[in-house]
Amino acid sequence: MNRIIKGKQSLLFENAPYIVSAASVTGSKEAAGPLGKLFDMTNEDDLFGAQTWEEAESTMQKEACVLALGKAHVKADEIRYLFGGDLLRQGIATSMGVEALQIPMFGLYGACSTSGEALALAGMSAAAGYGKYMLAVTSSHFGSAEKEFRFPLGYANQRPLSAHWTVTGSGAFLVRAAEPAATSASDAPAVNVLAEEPEESPTAAPNEDDISTTHISHVRIAGVTVGKIVDYGLKDSQNMGACMAPAAMDTIVQNFEDFGRSEQDYDRIITGDLGYVGQSILFDLVRDKGYDIRKKHLDCGMTIYDQETQDTHAGGSGCGCAAVTLASFIIPKIEKGEWKRVLFVPTGALMSTVSFNEGASVPGIAHGIVLEHWPQAE
Amino acid sequence: MNRIIKGKQSLLFENAPYIVSAASVTGSKEAAGPLGKLFDMTNEDDLFGAQTWEEAESTMQKEACVLALGKAHVKADEIRYLFGGDLLRQGIATSMGVEALQIPMFGLYGACSTSGEALALAGMSAAAGYGKYMLAVTSSHFGSAEKEFRFPLGYANQRPLSAHWTVTGSGAFLVRAAEPAATSASDAPAVNVLAEEPEESPTAAPNEDDISTTHISHVRIAGVTVGKIVDYGLKDSQNMGACMAPAAMDTIVQNFEDFGRSEQDYDRIITGDLGYVGQSILFDLVRDKGYDIRKKHLDCGMTIYDQETQDTHAGGSGCGCAAVTLASFIIPKIEKGEWKRVLFVPTGALMSTVSFNEGASVPGIAHGIVLEHWPQAE
Repeated sequence: MNRIIKGKQSLLFENAPYIVSAASVTGSKEAAGPLGKLFDMTNEDDLFGAQTWEEAESTMQKEACVLALGKAHVKADEIRYLFGGDLLRQGIATSMGVEALQIPMFGLYGACSTSGEALALAGMSAAAGYGKYMLAVTSSHFGSAEKEFRFPLGYANQRPLSAHWTVTGSGAFLVRAAEPAATSASDAPAVNVLAEEPEESPTAAPNEDDISTTHISHVRIAGVTVGKIVDYGLKDSQNMGACMAPAAMDTIVQNFEDFGRSEQDYDRIITGDLGYVGQSILFDLVRDKGYDIRKKHLDCGMTIYDQETQDTHAGGSGCGCAAVTLASFIIPKIEKGEWKRVLFVPTGALMSTVSFNEGASVPGIAHGIVLEHWPQAE
Repeated sequence: MNRIIKGKQSLLFENAPYIVSAASVTGSKEAAGPLGKLFDMTNEDDLFGAQTWEEAESTMQKEACVLALGKAHVKADEIRYLFGGDLLRQGIATSMGVEALQIPMFGLYGACSTSGEALALAGMSAAAGYGKYMLAVTSSHFGSAEKEFRFPLGYANQRPLSAHWTVTGSGAFLVRAAEPAATSASDAPAVNVLAEEPEESPTAAPNEDDISTTHISHVRIAGVTVGKIVDYGLKDSQNMGACMAPAAMDTIVQNFEDFGRSEQDYDRIITGDLGYVGQSILFDLVRDKGYDIRKKHLDCGMTIYDQETQDTHAGGSGCGCAAVTLASFIIPKIEKGEWKRVLFVPTGALMSTVSFNEGASVPGIAHGIVLEHWPQAE
């Protein structure tokens, strides 16, 4: 079974699971941006009918999950495990958001890299045969994040040019295990469902034919590169791009080494929220390692807002940023085969107001997810 | 591969991984308690040489990891993935604590259930063949937790009788995959190491013979029951036992149903930190489901302090509570065969000061880990 293990930090799934559906829910600023028309649900006042920013964020998570399930005609009780997280203290947006779904769950924290962490664990669990369906969900909200990390909105503080704008949004991803025998390269994606034990979800049985024929996906999680904490000693929590760029470099280069690849092997290398400051640092750091990703790189934080008309300074951020960009913009391109192989690398800055006030540095972490169009034309 | 899946929420590992070493680091109050002499490292001023409670907690995590590695003569770079978490906002005790180890890591949040979450994911990853060694670590600290959730220590507030005392401690667990072929019931635990790809950690190769002969463990993670969020609508964050008891019941009963077992099949059913208030509620809730666990139950929060001489009101709590009790007290009993099968169920109360101030309820979550002495005498 060790053929799965690649190099120091990576896994290559022999029987790669599929992302069968993805959903995105965002606020008004995101709706007005370049990807606005691609989101599944948006809200004008960013409250989603709730009384507080935190409750609004929870509502987004729940809606994103329900939408992802609905697109695939899968019910919540068919999901084996949920992997979710957010930026708030003690992850309350997730706890309160997914509670109603009643899916056994793992709460995660990886700052803005959490969508990568959730997809990695969902993919690992599906590939291991621990269940047919896994759900990965993350969120962030501008209002709750400003309160959590910076100043109350009413204070109207000035933001430095290196600061990011936290994306109000949640992305959810339904991950399905491949059929056990689908190891040979077939022309079609796995369409058969896993054999089920009689004892589990007998109610799902009548729909199985439906599911197997209608929920075909061409997007699979081919592998992961799990990130480690990278600390260059930077302490400026208002310059997260600089804090996270070393971690992004570390994971991207490790992915190349573990898989024996280079930037040539990917159609796109997509970071989460390095922004304009972090991107230029990333290019320099990666070049020092002998690679040049400039022509392949895209950053979700630079993609989600229009820098001309929606000046956010350094770009978008938050665990919703990479998640909604993946769900609305990246996955459809892989699904259509426009991009055959993408390295998706959400990046996180590990800090809290307490660690900042106590003078600690802001280390970064980034998880790499290899997403492939299937079948691959070799 | 679906033989792994049990019922609605559980997994039974066909080739169960081992806990090859465990380490506990605690503060002074824990050192003075009934388990005091069992801990690997204690500290008199609870600061562990650091300047802040948060830094002290990080130091505990790092020391616990280093001790667990040292006991098994395994180096940090042999660990494939680390699963860690704590109670602080944005999990900074973990981020800053394990940073120096440079192990690819997954940050977790499950409140006081995090040790169960970490062991579940470490066991799942090892059983899936994703690496030979995984590390699970959690921590809590009385000083940092009071600051995070309640009042600064200098304020000297009164605590209600239902309140818990957060354990200052960290527990780390080194999980090793079984050898791939060990599916038949053998008289001896797996002593051979997994075959390794030539490309990975060539430096570790010279030690392999050592490892295979000296680090035998009789404790294995036989299965897991992943918990879901259970909310009875309680809002009193100073009565966490009552908030968590429904989740503990839910996971214990689900474990019984998923595995076709009852309390008779376990030598002990051990919750994390329900305390004196939560235990009596748990007994009632479980009895309503047709089971009686009174003779098999033990709670780490009631075990770690002496209620006569160290009055902590409801008992100990925190993700360090279950972790250090498991490492110092429970695992040795399983190792010796005194207990053949234990259901370890750390419990968490999902809340933050923000959710509390906004009037949200305090739902609970509990993850069940089936620990077995191996070989089992049938």
